[in-house]
Amino acid sequence: MQLAKGNTLSKKQGKGRNKELAVTPRAEDYSKWYIDVIMKAELADYSPVKGCMVIRPNGYAIWEKMKAALDRMFKETGHRNAYFPLLIPQSFLTKEAEHVEGFAPQCAVVTHGGGSKLEEPLVVRPTSETMIYEMYKKWVRSYRDLPILINQWANVYRWEMRTRLFLRTSEFLWQEGHTVHAAENEALEETLKMLQVYKTFSEEFMAVPVITGVKTPSERFPGAVDTYCIEAMMQDKKALQAGTSHMLGQNFAKGFDVKYQAEDGEWKYVWGTSWGVSTRLIGALIMAHSDDKGLVIPPRLAANPVVIIPIYKKKDEELKTKVLDAAYKLRDELTKEPGDIIVDDREGMSPGFKYSEWEQKGIPVRIELGPRDLEKSSVMVARRDGKPKEILPMEGLSKAIDLILEDIQKGLFEKALAFRAENTHKADDYSEFKEKLETDGGFWHLHWCESDDCEKQIQEETKATIRCIADHIEDSDGCCIKCGKPSKRRVVFAKSY
Amino acid sequence: MQLAKGNTLSKKQGKGRNKELAVTPRAEDYSKWYIDVIMKAELADYSPVKGCMVIRPNGYAIWEKMKAALDRMFKETGHRNAYFPLLIPQSFLTKEAEHVEGFAPQCAVVTHGGGSKLEEPLVVRPTSETMIYEMYKKWVRSYRDLPILINQWANVYRWEMRTRLFLRTSEFLWQEGHTVHAAENEALEETLKMLQVYKTFSEEFMAVPVITGVKTPSERFPGAVDTYCIEAMMQDKKALQAGTSHMLGQNFAKGFDVKYQAEDGEWKYVWGTSWGVSTRLIGALIMAHSDDKGLVIPPRLAANPVVIIPIYKKKDEELKTKVLDAAYKLRDELTKEPGDIIVDDREGMSPGFKYSEWEQKGIPVRIELGPRDLEKSSVMVARRDGKPKEILPMEGLSKAIDLILEDIQKGLFEKALAFRAENTHKADDYSEFKEKLETDGGFWHLHWCESDDCEKQIQEETKATIRCIADHIEDSDGCCIKCGKPSKRRVVFAKSY
Repeated sequence: MQLAKGNTLSKKQGKGRNKELAVTPRAEDYSKWYIDVIMKAELADYSPVKGCMVIRPNGYAIWEKMKAALDRMFKETGHRNAYFPLLIPQSFLTKEAEHVEGFAPQCAVVTHGGGSKLEEPLVVRPTSETMIYEMYKKWVRSYRDLPILINQWANVYRWEMRTRLFLRTSEFLWQEGHTVHAAENEALEETLKMLQVYKTFSEEFMAVPVITGVKTPSERFPGAVDTYCIEAMMQDKKALQAGTSHMLGQNFAKGFDVKYQAEDGEWKYVWGTSWGVSTRLIGALIMAHSDDKGLVIPPRLAANPVVIIPIYKKKDEELKTKVLDAAYKLRDELTKEPGDIIVDDREGMSPGFKYSEWEQKGIPVRIELGPRDLEKSSVMVARRDGKPKEILPMEGLSKAIDLILEDIQKGLFEKALAFRAENTHKADDYSEFKEKLETDGGFWHLHWCESDDCEKQIQEETKATIRCIADHIEDSDGCCIKCGKPSKRRVVFAKSY
Repeated sequence: MQLAKGNTLSKKQGKGRNKELAVTPRAEDYSKWYIDVIMKAELADYSPVKGCMVIRPNGYAIWEKMKAALDRMFKETGHRNAYFPLLIPQSFLTKEAEHVEGFAPQCAVVTHGGGSKLEEPLVVRPTSETMIYEMYKKWVRSYRDLPILINQWANVYRWEMRTRLFLRTSEFLWQEGHTVHAAENEALEETLKMLQVYKTFSEEFMAVPVITGVKTPSERFPGAVDTYCIEAMMQDKKALQAGTSHMLGQNFAKGFDVKYQAEDGEWKYVWGTSWGVSTRLIGALIMAHSDDKGLVIPPRLAANPVVIIPIYKKKDEELKTKVLDAAYKLRDELTKEPGDIIVDDREGMSPGFKYSEWEQKGIPVRIELGPRDLEKSSVMVARRDGKPKEILPMEGLSKAIDLILEDIQKGLFEKALAFRAENTHKADDYSEFKEKLETDGGFWHLHWCESDDCEKQIQEETKATIRCIADHIEDSDGCCIKCGKPSKRRVVFAKSY
């Protein structure tokens, strides 16, 4: 592959690299570390428009890998992609009462177009339920037309005051699934099926373990009957909501009058779901795995799983040619998709400098190839997960590298899983919880009486919110940690992004 | 695959199909035929927002195939994808004088966001040169940073008064490549390279032959030094501009002050290119190949290359099971990507009804499978290109179908090429040209003196425009067909979309 231009450091910059280029350690300043990782890996950049970001090629490559994996899973579960208009008449939002209340304040509003003032303002979609139900009204007549299982890959816009690259930006890229069904149970089944797809994707591709569950009413999607979510633990022990799947019931069907004629001739409202994940996942990926050297990309989401560093003395032209030829040959042997294996043949930089740069960029495996390796027909293989370097024979290297990549993928997941286990606690005493949350952070399984008041008070006093009523926690009788009233089960509290 | 729900016709609708469902013949009303083809194949629908369309799953599937093929070609030529913000400060447009003049009147303008009036209005991107050069200014320092070869897949918005599904809509999906280079010749080389990529894609995937060439100054992209294009002939003998590649020179570099330090230490402006194709290509595809039965999709862009129709009598349950089992087995044998082969096992519709429906939807190959076929271990294969049905043995069918699909692909291209040849003419007499253009349409190779005036007058009097100064026409001395002044070569005139 051609090296990403505009992404490389010139020789001069290289000289001062220890000072200029190191990533702030997590322990020193976690927020700064996060931004440093993004900037050094050239994943994204601030844009001239407040609250928006530019996703640079290295960041977009991760998104492309995520999209490909998710899209395949959506298609395997019977969904098809479509595209609906970006601009939505403002009045559409008002057709679902909670929806407009939730989204209207966040909308970017187009008031002029083609040189004149519009009769009705248009909003840049914050989400597409309203536009899509308007179309479903046209398309649904009979029970034979159901279910409709559509997904859209799109940009959306929600005005945000406090933004953070990938995690919260005014514009973001996402997918939004929108399905309508004849029966309530089918819609619920779909909602849970897609939640499971998100969990599988997060764990198997992102190597990020997640808990699943349902949100409390206060955290529901505006217009949903129930919002289900996947929640991940970041390295600062905060929670991050990584995806949501909404059971919409008949709320939008009623707002937009989407009815079908059942087999018995009766006209009935459809039952709906919607579900989405966004470029926020890239933020989750960074915060889950990266380290003080920079980005760590799980191999299954790495557009460039391997970088080869040829090592030679500049003066010995003959040897240089030999080493480079061997590096290109090796690249061709390891290549699975055009451009996936990088040979860093840039001149005027030391191998050590290159090592650091590719570590910052999160490439899972580095192969070092010098004259002595050539003699022995072997290479030195370094892993981004920090496990020891090893010398491997050229013979059968492709297979060996595949196994190493799998091992890295597995190791990242297991490490994250162990970290979450270590940092998940129970408490039955409010002051103890409050104190330990402050010092240790983490996920807390607490009894809660299901009242909004207790939820709110706990949030105000501790900054922890209920992440979800989690599927993996069994029912157990207890007392609300706040008010002492009876509780049927523990729920997961945590500080969150 | 699960049959596209909401895309099928209920039994009741089926009864009146001859009247309701036939496509208007091309000879009767070409414009109505075009819309009918789209509606019957469920490629797109009108949206509640003026000038915008909804791309339905069948249409989006074609776009996905186009994207995959183009994206691969872009990556093979060294480009990487990125994503830039949707909303652009209005003032950015004014930094390139021709650019703002060309695009400002077409902009959708966001004046309010997050509940308040904005200090500076933002426009929904009509194209992204301005935003991207603002970022390139940040990223480019040294000659080592060049070239930057970036592509973006995105939606754009250009307010249009007269719209037509796919061909001209206010919002459309496209890709926009934006590259900057150290030297003028490199930028020109890139411009022409991407033009060639478009030609290859159009001919090899869309089966649509195109001519390449450069636009006259009046048809240039606002802000470009030169605009190159691919132009295709539609079945009504009009031209359609299917893609453009712009040599931007240093226009945007100067507007946005994008400079690099050359090896000799001097600071120089970069040289730029931009190039794009859009969902308009789907319109071109339809108009190039479809017929009075409905849509025709070239096999290389068909998400579903084959539909299998099982044929049985409803009452004989045993036979029905046998036929269906054989159909599913055949589907599994032919499957290359999940869901690509359809078995139309819907109940309550005659085979003939199904044949018509899949013909309308453009599926390249139909396999009919009944009890007698089972006995003989053969199937009936019908081709969407109208060539005769044939009986083929089950044994080795997958290979045989691949050959048929290739043959259809090749045949569509050759037919379109022959059609263009038949309808491309020369003229040296203005009245003769005018008259024949009116009766016969087509592409006309005419001598032209290179003056804006003659170009404009010809357009006013004939509605034909110069599609391009075409690469394939050799220099030859002659006289301008309009004014009689000397001309060095013929250029291509045609009426166009």
